[in-house]
Amino acid sequence: MQELGRHFILELFGCSVKALDDLEGIRKAMLKGAVEAGATVVGEVFHRFSPQGVTGVVIIAESHFSVHTWPEYGYAAVDLFTCSSTTDPDKAFKRIDAFLKPKSSTAIELKRGMFAEGKQ
Amino acid sequence: MQELGRHFILELFGCSVKALDDLEGIRKAMLKGAVEAGATVVGEVFHRFSPQGVTGVVIIAESHFSVHTWPEYGYAAVDLFTCSSTTDPDKAFKRIDAFLKPKSSTAIELKRGMFAEGKQ
Repeated sequence: MQELGRHFILELFGCSVKALDDLEGIRKAMLKGAVEAGATVVGEVFHRFSPQGVTGVVIIAESHFSVHTWPEYGYAAVDLFTCSSTTDPDKAFKRIDAFLKPKSSTAIELKRGMFAEGKQ
Repeated sequence: MQELGRHFILELFGCSVKALDDLEGIRKAMLKGAVEAGATVVGEVFHRFSPQGVTGVVIIAESHFSVHTWPEYGYAAVDLFTCSSTTDPDKAFKRIDAFLKPKSSTAIELKRGMFAEGKQ
């Protein structure tokens, strides 16, 4: 079986509360991470909520990277969805991890768009 | 256990090839779907690829809705991520489904940000 995209679903717990509420810091980490992963950025939207929390999506030619933060729980939900075998989402994760500093994290990899071999 | 967000991961197969390559149609379906789901739109990015394919993300106050299409495979990857119990992602799915007309689809619901009761 072959997939069209790889989707990494990351749960980050015990993050730096200050970092989770820092829109500009998160934006820079996401954009830098996308470039380091070898992705091509085609758009971005970042938004800070009141009283706290940041949401951001970087649209890449290879799909998207997103982040949603809950400073009150020390938690961030990160998705790294890429459809190119030359993109290395691990590098984006390292950059985001270095900024948010989670005490623990979990990752699931989902294969998106699965077709039987030869049907792609 | 309680979750901070609900994340629906949808795989749409056998879609209308024409619809999968129609940026404006997909954009309208995603935005209309977000409003019908009771979400508050705070930003959007849509992009059409050459020679084909559309990527789009609607940032909502309650997280994000995204779509990536592969017209050459009749396939779309749709994510509906919401952190509000008053948002009804089913309504967004209905709108997107009505536009892309998949012959078959699968859905997974992931609970994001799980904490033991009382720790939220």
